[in-house]
Amino acid sequence: MASEFELIDLFQDIGSKYYSQNGIIIPPGDDCAVFQSNKPIITSVDSSVEGIHFPEDIEPSQIAYRSIAVALSDIAAMGCRPIAFSISISSLINDIDWYRNFSNGVKEISKIYEVPLIGGDFTKGQLNINIIVYGEPFLDKILKRSGAHDGDFICISKQVGRAKKGLKDLQSGKKNSTFIDDYLRPESKINLGKEISEIATSCIDTSDGLLADLKHILNSSNVGAEIYLDEIPFTENIDDINAGDDYDLCFTIPEKFLKDRFFIIGKVTKDKAIKFISEKGYDVEINGYEHF
Amino acid sequence: MASEFELIDLFQDIGSKYYSQNGIIIPPGDDCAVFQSNKPIITSVDSSVEGIHFPEDIEPSQIAYRSIAVALSDIAAMGCRPIAFSISISSLINDIDWYRNFSNGVKEISKIYEVPLIGGDFTKGQLNINIIVYGEPFLDKILKRSGAHDGDFICISKQVGRAKKGLKDLQSGKKNSTFIDDYLRPESKINLGKEISEIATSCIDTSDGLLADLKHILNSSNVGAEIYLDEIPFTENIDDINAGDDYDLCFTIPEKFLKDRFFIIGKVTKDKAIKFISEKGYDVEINGYEHF
Repeated sequence: MASEFELIDLFQDIGSKYYSQNGIIIPPGDDCAVFQSNKPIITSVDSSVEGIHFPEDIEPSQIAYRSIAVALSDIAAMGCRPIAFSISISSLINDIDWYRNFSNGVKEISKIYEVPLIGGDFTKGQLNINIIVYGEPFLDKILKRSGAHDGDFICISKQVGRAKKGLKDLQSGKKNSTFIDDYLRPESKINLGKEISEIATSCIDTSDGLLADLKHILNSSNVGAEIYLDEIPFTENIDDINAGDDYDLCFTIPEKFLKDRFFIIGKVTKDKAIKFISEKGYDVEINGYEHF
Repeated sequence: MASEFELIDLFQDIGSKYYSQNGIIIPPGDDCAVFQSNKPIITSVDSSVEGIHFPEDIEPSQIAYRSIAVALSDIAAMGCRPIAFSISISSLINDIDWYRNFSNGVKEISKIYEVPLIGGDFTKGQLNINIIVYGEPFLDKILKRSGAHDGDFICISKQVGRAKKGLKDLQSGKKNSTFIDDYLRPESKINLGKEISEIATSCIDTSDGLLADLKHILNSSNVGAEIYLDEIPFTENIDDINAGDDYDLCFTIPEKFLKDRFFIIGKVTKDKAIKFISEKGYDVEINGYEHF
């Protein structure tokens, strides 16, 4: 049976070499974590529940990695850099090896994004992982959902539906599928967020489905869009534009800042409707993920 | 059945009148919350699970109030002022009235501590409330667990065991018990934290039992203590020094800063042992709450 002491020991000092570069001024172990920045602080919390946000039979290290990657994606969506994260775990598991395996996933992603673990909480309960992330702007600008202008192009950076296909392949035991990592280890688009942070007019991460998330941008910005269905890079079929879990960035950008490697999937319009354009005869509905 | 839209609506704008005084520069509704401070930021997360951290039959507004009060207590323990909080709720409840009732508790405590709700997450799962709090120093100093010095006096500000008695009274239906509020509505000792922030040498909030929490101070400070058992103000009996949920502050303070209304319960010693002193013949063990 795992004691609280053993647990704390497993998670102590993860990413401690990044404390100083990220402004962590009091190391974890007090009632609160403490950090300092001369820029605005951005923060978000993401809850991952077993059986809903991840399958029951994946490795604890994969649960950890994915939960944190998903949370970091919100930092990317604001065009910011992550400076720290905290973990709150509710679990009924007593096996210390489970936590050791979990902590390996935490360590791995901490290293990749150079971001330290600064606090957390352990409680008893159904497996439920809450990740809290903290970040700051790379330079000055923070990307918001509002800000899209008439005439801006709507872009994404990768095929939609990769994660959905990955989950399907994972669950049907296709171990060699290259899509599985898209589901289990989504890349938090911190570098893309940095690249567009000073030039995009709005941004969101695509967790609930491209169209559902794009709709948040359009609503917040009080605009509409033409969607070029034929231009949308999909994995299996056009319905992938409603597939969740991709954690790509969807952003709007004035024409002069477009880059070749962005996929242009539409254009912002003054008219608030969403108009689908397809010569191939594609037809879609907006069916985003309902959290509740 | 509650839709995500209705839920967001219930929690939107709670404490929005405190945005500007607390540096919230982008209102909630984006991928992250954004605030700014020219001081260090302190932050903590506290998870409250039904049946473990609160009884199953209390009102949703009481669950909300208590969960947030408990989290704010960590800000008090650092001698800081709260600037904002976020809520992540996992729940299988579909009844919108439950959430309306819950949001009333959130609104109430937001007003009392003048602190806005800046973000959160809703997910499906066993009832699990995670509260994330953010704060900053009143002036400059942040109270830590380490820092207690040989000769400092160890103080608390109220009777130990009040919350334990309150929970007992609540569960046995004694509705008029004045102790019930000590359990359901613990006062986050923000004002006490402020008062001692520049003069105490260490501080912790007493969530797991006075002695267990004091031990954290002593370990972090690399010191020991004499505990004056006869001086400890208890509710039912001396074993209340191991009763959890009090959310008082336990702090160490040099003699010259002592005030009449602090209860002096011991003295810090260079010798790292904990020595109990009692002429009344009290005898106790350290049995703090085990989270796991």
